[in-house]
Amino acid sequence: MVKIGGKVIDDPHALQNFLQAFARLRGNKILIHGGGKALSDLSTRLGLAPRMVDGRRITDHETLELAVMVYGGLVNKKIVAALQALGQNALGLSGADGNLIRAKKRPPGKVDYGWVGDVERINDRAIYDLLQIGFTPVFCALTHDGQGHLLNTNADTVATEIAIALSNRFAVRLLFGLELPGVLRDVNDASSLITYLTRKEYEALLQNKRIHSGMLPKLENAFRALRSGVKNVFILHHSALEALQTSRAVLGTQISLI
Amino acid sequence: MVKIGGKVIDDPHALQNFLQAFARLRGNKILIHGGGKALSDLSTRLGLAPRMVDGRRITDHETLELAVMVYGGLVNKKIVAALQALGQNALGLSGADGNLIRAKKRPPGKVDYGWVGDVERINDRAIYDLLQIGFTPVFCALTHDGQGHLLNTNADTVATEIAIALSNRFAVRLLFGLELPGVLRDVNDASSLITYLTRKEYEALLQNKRIHSGMLPKLENAFRALRSGVKNVFILHHSALEALQTSRAVLGTQISLI
Repeated sequence: MVKIGGKVIDDPHALQNFLQAFARLRGNKILIHGGGKALSDLSTRLGLAPRMVDGRRITDHETLELAVMVYGGLVNKKIVAALQALGQNALGLSGADGNLIRAKKRPPGKVDYGWVGDVERINDRAIYDLLQIGFTPVFCALTHDGQGHLLNTNADTVATEIAIALSNRFAVRLLFGLELPGVLRDVNDASSLITYLTRKEYEALLQNKRIHSGMLPKLENAFRALRSGVKNVFILHHSALEALQTSRAVLGTQISLI
Repeated sequence: MVKIGGKVIDDPHALQNFLQAFARLRGNKILIHGGGKALSDLSTRLGLAPRMVDGRRITDHETLELAVMVYGGLVNKKIVAALQALGQNALGLSGADGNLIRAKKRPPGKVDYGWVGDVERINDRAIYDLLQIGFTPVFCALTHDGQGHLLNTNADTVATEIAIALSNRFAVRLLFGLELPGVLRDVNDASSLITYLTRKEYEALLQNKRIHSGMLPKLENAFRALRSGVKNVFILHHSALEALQTSRAVLGTQISLI
């Protein structure tokens, strides 16, 4: 299972390379994608300034509609069509489709994030059925509340929850693709890559405030996945996917409980 | 199988009523939707004037991207989420998903319609599999060419092609929902409804130029569907769907070869 986000979605050449590598992966596979900057671009063209609090987007009604257009429409269908051209029987999905991901609107606290959902339940049986038919599910990070509302959900979390839900049926490998070579000791130094990160080392790094803030939720998701039955988790550069499949060389950061 | 388009998609109240009636239909069912005026609205907000020739949209690259956002994203996912809230296990689809509808880009003739596709092949086996799992497919009218390109396709034609393809496996009833009570002898007189229209009568009406131009392609599709194995075809008002299910009263226009 592979999660991609960020620049790879906005760069047609990088995306095509990534999808070619993804297409070569053997076995059942699932792709989860973020939205790249397409949503902010569309918002800006429509004269709506993206509103962020602590790096997180406030999803008001209009922003949700744009997110549904960009994530569920443009990005999802482009990836599906590109995978089809590579001979992969991709099937684009949101969490509303097939009631695959039920979420609960986050109650307003200090900040009201708006139409944002926290995952409650993955319909792993239906995802299993789709895999059995031979489809390659391609998920955008939209969920629904079962009352007719779509909700914006963090794509790393969606990937993690699906991985956990399927770990009862499969030995799941979860890969988080990003723009960095993996988890770095120093975010400004690519040679500081940590190739193997245990929970204990992670906690030491946390105490020394050596974890880049953008990496924190990814790592929390990674350890949660491992605790909940996912077989292995890697955080690695998008372009490393192919090498991971074909060689035994260490690529990116493998996350481990022990 | 039900095709909807036009105003019902833009009117939340009418859409909700329609979806409630759709949810009550028994047996396997498929919904095909157009885009309403949401695409033109978004184009206008972005300062792009919709370009039409003979009432048909020119789909340049940018218009295609907006169509993918609006049809494949906003409209499709809204309908899916609303059906889920009604207990229907809706699954939103474009023709690229699961390679369900392969099309060929229309070669430029007198007019270059741009990224517009003519249906070549329906993957009826995959649609059958999805129905067997218990999903209710909800199609937008986007197709793909198998080379990575999405294509804009007429929603009436998509509905007709799917109906024909499934008629080998099922007794298919095809319903075209619209804003009129059905086929009218006089488009300005709702009481001129034709309740039963045979091919022979249709040809007579054609000769007398009594067929409203917007109705022509719908009727051509309707007769083609009947010739190709679809069991029956109705053209009726969106709001008539429920009554069709529960009564034997004549509603809308039934199309018949003889």
